[in-house]
Amino acid sequence: MEIARPYLLFLGDVPDALAAKTAVGIVDWRKDWCIGQVRLQGCAADTGLSDMTIGEGAGAGAKTLIIGAVNAGGRLPDHWIASVVEALDAGLDVASGLHVRLGDVPQIREAAERNGRRLHDVRHNSMTFATGKGTKRRGKRILAVGTDCSVGKKYTALAMDRAMNERGYQSTFCATGQTGVFISGRGVSLDAVVADFISGAAEWISPETEDDHWQIVEGQGSLFHPSFAGVTLGLLHGSQPDGFIVCHEPTRTKMRGVETPLPTIQQVIDMTVQCGSLTNPDIRCVGIAVNTSALDNDEALAFLAKVGEKHGLPATDPVRFGMDVIVDKVSAEFGAP
Amino acid sequence: MEIARPYLLFLGDVPDALAAKTAVGIVDWRKDWCIGQVRLQGCAADTGLSDMTIGEGAGAGAKTLIIGAVNAGGRLPDHWIASVVEALDAGLDVASGLHVRLGDVPQIREAAERNGRRLHDVRHNSMTFATGKGTKRRGKRILAVGTDCSVGKKYTALAMDRAMNERGYQSTFCATGQTGVFISGRGVSLDAVVADFISGAAEWISPETEDDHWQIVEGQGSLFHPSFAGVTLGLLHGSQPDGFIVCHEPTRTKMRGVETPLPTIQQVIDMTVQCGSLTNPDIRCVGIAVNTSALDNDEALAFLAKVGEKHGLPATDPVRFGMDVIVDKVSAEFGAP
Repeated sequence: MEIARPYLLFLGDVPDALAAKTAVGIVDWRKDWCIGQVRLQGCAADTGLSDMTIGEGAGAGAKTLIIGAVNAGGRLPDHWIASVVEALDAGLDVASGLHVRLGDVPQIREAAERNGRRLHDVRHNSMTFATGKGTKRRGKRILAVGTDCSVGKKYTALAMDRAMNERGYQSTFCATGQTGVFISGRGVSLDAVVADFISGAAEWISPETEDDHWQIVEGQGSLFHPSFAGVTLGLLHGSQPDGFIVCHEPTRTKMRGVETPLPTIQQVIDMTVQCGSLTNPDIRCVGIAVNTSALDNDEALAFLAKVGEKHGLPATDPVRFGMDVIVDKVSAEFGAP
Repeated sequence: MEIARPYLLFLGDVPDALAAKTAVGIVDWRKDWCIGQVRLQGCAADTGLSDMTIGEGAGAGAKTLIIGAVNAGGRLPDHWIASVVEALDAGLDVASGLHVRLGDVPQIREAAERNGRRLHDVRHNSMTFATGKGTKRRGKRILAVGTDCSVGKKYTALAMDRAMNERGYQSTFCATGQTGVFISGRGVSLDAVVADFISGAAEWISPETEDDHWQIVEGQGSLFHPSFAGVTLGLLHGSQPDGFIVCHEPTRTKMRGVETPLPTIQQVIDMTVQCGSLTNPDIRCVGIAVNTSALDNDEALAFLAKVGEKHGLPATDPVRFGMDVIVDKVSAEFGAP
């Protein structure tokens, strides 16, 4: 699934900024892929891109309208349909991370057929994958893992990819979730793949590449999360990482959405090495990424110093302090670019 | 997904017995649920049930026609369609484990709608599950796990269920694969569930029950299989077993379909306890089930004695020597019925 660029971001008329976090995430990481934003009357979100009509976006060269906002329930409001049809009639593809499939809306399906355009439902998966093979592929890989869901794995992987590139490594971000797919322009939402093909899809997401090329793979879930650990394990086996970064949020006491207590960072390191060695016996932890937003600056620095010393690993907050210390570790372990 | 009984088994005109192994498995374990078999001219398989026409089966009270045979490629041969339509017109539901969905065949879909009958595609999943919660449910559970795929986990679970019942326990077999679904009359093919819902589906498959009721859960894959470990882990977390049985095939050197070497029985025990304790801290191994069909009787007994002594656990071949020694262990660990 390759999404044609540049993007035109559709924000609809969502009532707050949070509802447009997909669009904001795309602009944060791939502003140069975006032509502008389309907002309906009453929209309270703003990515900072130029406002334009769909016609203006098409005229400026946009190739895909991204529905970068979500209504309560993940549905497509009826009054957004006309905008989607207008984009298809203007020659754009349309991509969505909504629960509903674009092609299930008759007007949209007909408009796509009429114009020969593609509809991308990144939350659904229409691709066929092979089952995972587990054989070692060329290239180097880093996977973000976590003590829980929603602890910054996507942000960490994107920040690591950017830092690796800035330091002269050849590096590519590999998406495994819906916003990540828009940011990478390729990939599948791994949680939407049929269970038999999780590791096979992860192998497809991080395919064979040059020996000195690094793939930085977005993580999903946690090996210790009772809802999603199967996805996490299939991703670990399929992405066969050489290195992994443990992502952590220090104020959380229970796993997201359930009553299960959080594992320790050390438990995550040990279990990841133990399970990951099935497809890469040389797997090792290269750093710890902590979301310190609940701490002030001094507390954050003290926490990172303590965690880093305890585990003998570089620890950082990717947002506050960048990824340089983890790139240093990669350089020490695997060599300079 | 509950499949109405009794069953009428459709064998088509398959060229050998192996192609009808689903039907044979149903008859092996649930002969009393089966009214008869329907065979087309040239069929080389035989379950031993009475041959009848679809009309005769319907007249004898059959509620569901089970397509218990598979053609090369898992397709529905064109010349089987008339039989399926005839069954629907005779008032039966139809259930299939083929890759193709019955409802994708227009004549079949129309006949089902015309007669208000249900089509069960057990290899596909149209149910909506919650994500797994990981909270402890009432009732007791045993899960079959394995050093590999296709090492007898379904047979072991069915044999354990039968032996538990014979020994006076209240016990139910919980299916997680397509043949198992036909044998239990309920369940889902876990490998067909969307990845986010593996453990949630496993929780649905083995729901809360009486404190003294045992659910014997069919296993899938292996925690050490690079293609399917995600399914296995989600099943382990969702089924939260009190006890598990390790299934093993002693002549195998590589995992099925891949180049990965087989884990040891001890590795499987350790990893299952380690991962399974997330949702059931009291998880323990209650026995080892070995497929000794490649060994003669003396070799088999010697192998089982050696394996049992090494791990301090009862070891048996369910086919050759029954499950009594493992039921003894359950009785010793958890109490008599």
